[in-house]
Amino acid sequence: MSVTTAQGFRASGVAAGLKSTGKPDVAVVVNDGPDHHAAAVFTTNRVAAAPVVWSRQVVADRRVDAVVLNSGGANAATGHQGFQDTHATAEHAAGQLGISAGDVLVCSTGLIGLPQPMDRLVPGVTAAVEALGAEGGADAAEAIMTTDSVPKTAVHRGPGYVIGGMAKGAGMLAPGMATMLCVITTDAAVDPAELDVALTEAVRTTFNRTDSDGCMSTNDTVALLASGASGTRPEAAEFQEGLRTVCADLARQLIADAEGAAHEISIQVVNASTEDAAEAVARAVSRSNLFKAAVFGQDPNWGRVISAVGTVPEELAPFDAGRLDVHFNGVQVCRDSGVGEDRELVDLSPREVSVVIDLHAGEATATIWTNDLTHDYVHENSAYSS
Amino acid sequence: MSVTTAQGFRASGVAAGLKSTGKPDVAVVVNDGPDHHAAAVFTTNRVAAAPVVWSRQVVADRRVDAVVLNSGGANAATGHQGFQDTHATAEHAAGQLGISAGDVLVCSTGLIGLPQPMDRLVPGVTAAVEALGAEGGADAAEAIMTTDSVPKTAVHRGPGYVIGGMAKGAGMLAPGMATMLCVITTDAAVDPAELDVALTEAVRTTFNRTDSDGCMSTNDTVALLASGASGTRPEAAEFQEGLRTVCADLARQLIADAEGAAHEISIQVVNASTEDAAEAVARAVSRSNLFKAAVFGQDPNWGRVISAVGTVPEELAPFDAGRLDVHFNGVQVCRDSGVGEDRELVDLSPREVSVVIDLHAGEATATIWTNDLTHDYVHENSAYSS
Repeated sequence: MSVTTAQGFRASGVAAGLKSTGKPDVAVVVNDGPDHHAAAVFTTNRVAAAPVVWSRQVVADRRVDAVVLNSGGANAATGHQGFQDTHATAEHAAGQLGISAGDVLVCSTGLIGLPQPMDRLVPGVTAAVEALGAEGGADAAEAIMTTDSVPKTAVHRGPGYVIGGMAKGAGMLAPGMATMLCVITTDAAVDPAELDVALTEAVRTTFNRTDSDGCMSTNDTVALLASGASGTRPEAAEFQEGLRTVCADLARQLIADAEGAAHEISIQVVNASTEDAAEAVARAVSRSNLFKAAVFGQDPNWGRVISAVGTVPEELAPFDAGRLDVHFNGVQVCRDSGVGEDRELVDLSPREVSVVIDLHAGEATATIWTNDLTHDYVHENSAYSS
Repeated sequence: MSVTTAQGFRASGVAAGLKSTGKPDVAVVVNDGPDHHAAAVFTTNRVAAAPVVWSRQVVADRRVDAVVLNSGGANAATGHQGFQDTHATAEHAAGQLGISAGDVLVCSTGLIGLPQPMDRLVPGVTAAVEALGAEGGADAAEAIMTTDSVPKTAVHRGPGYVIGGMAKGAGMLAPGMATMLCVITTDAAVDPAELDVALTEAVRTTFNRTDSDGCMSTNDTVALLASGASGTRPEAAEFQEGLRTVCADLARQLIADAEGAAHEISIQVVNASTEDAAEAVARAVSRSNLFKAAVFGQDPNWGRVISAVGTVPEELAPFDAGRLDVHFNGVQVCRDSGVGEDRELVDLSPREVSVVIDLHAGEATATIWTNDLTHDYVHENSAYSS
């Protein structure tokens, strides 16, 4: 049920004709309160889409009453007209809902560089507002899908409250069409400042460590809305962990559904000097096309792993380049930066691949989740395009 | 004739059985003087191969008498034994040539993580020394090939002197086997300190702006040897420009021969605040798999270009994200970060593709050369592996 599992929320998803397939493409999520607290995290891409520019302003006062989402058009690289279209979308939804446009987040996903088809989007928002219901979470999750093969939802039940979320996207694996959007709702009573801290921290170790192909979208948005309808005020640490669980669950679903991928790869760096160092090393490996192609070929190519590790500057991650260990699915194929156990012992036919890199430089750990580089990836991103 | 076009040099290339194909795999280049000045640039990868560790020490005194190169084995990730093997190779060559091992550079390329087959390499060096000749440049260029489909050589004739070079590699497009190695010789009389400055500057704007797939090898080496045999002492600026010409020529040949590539792409950033800013933006685009796959699909996808431009931090490259222009093969498909001329006007069927990005932020320019992301790239790097 995702965003409507928590009390105080209604949602809907309808087909407005933005997608050529006729599938649902407009969703609305409404927070009926009593609280209307919110936090959000956006792409750091400087070429931010109009909805991101708008929504940053909306969430600045930490109050959000509703979220309007559409697939079938990213409204990115659309200039002043694009911003006006986003503004008009928020005004229209606000009018229908009897709230202020300044409390309406807008999220869009689809092709870049095309004007929003407002003649279809506006009636779509009207229909979505009419369809709002306390059971509408599933419809909303379906309406935000682009190249996703399945809707992604997750729920965490804490003591006396619920956190639920929906997400779409394929880690930018499917390009013009692959923004990551996520809306999370909770009926816990949480102060806005706490929400902000909790969301930033949860995203840091989940969505931000999901790096399918290193490409950052112009539209990425993660929004968290709190209604307080449960009357429960959770302990900060407990809420934080619950939120992280939901984000981690959704992030893993994104990687699992990444288009063209044949493997889901976790790259865990252990015994680093700091968590930042561990993350930098894991990310360098996750961005090596040679490594990713090797995994596709079911080749536990530790040479490509340590070559990528070696590109991380020493000031970022101190380690002895002659003491690196690499494990593929539990087999230590590289020891002290040289040959380790027999690579024939590694079976890379399962979809899930674990790579563990030991830096022998401290006690910190970080994991990046990524995918392999496949023929289908090239096909998806060259044959079908905006 | 490459490295033997300049006076004062002999070279050779022989088959020592390191390659399973039986093709030539050991080369030697000797500087007979009267000068033995040298400079070299190496990979910045911290997981540097044994020959790189050795050669850095050799060139520290700016004197080099000979270079031994082998394909069929990178001697990378081979630990202490790997270093001892490189040392033994230099000692053996020095003994054969009657010079000091401390003046012998060693360069290796091939698979990572395998011990050097010294039982074949040592007799190969003996044979290569016996085969040395003033016409041996072509044989040497052939012996350093790995997955290269053609040998790469270049010559520049200055007033009264010559610069010639050979290179191998496919921009790390072909992984375990794709180190970039380059030896350049000149009979100009140039002081060692000047050589060093000239080589560093020439590499900076040529090989270092050749970024086929973003993967940095453990073995990359560019060496420059000056014999002074012409007796000509060129003007510094003139020599600098000649050297840059040779490096640029060889770099373009590497991109042209990159395995699996269907397009050679030049990404030129113009009107940047600084050259560093221009380079950072061009490199970000060159590393976008989405952009590279689009070029393979002959799609002038400017949305993927500006998405990649937008990932460059403002402190690195100040520009107005709403004022970007993008040209594909001369057609301005993106104006002010929005739709420009009709994309149908762009023909991306030719192998050479020009992308020009105008930042409207200054007067500096830089160009990165790269390749597209193709099915053949994935195939080469997944099906065939170390």
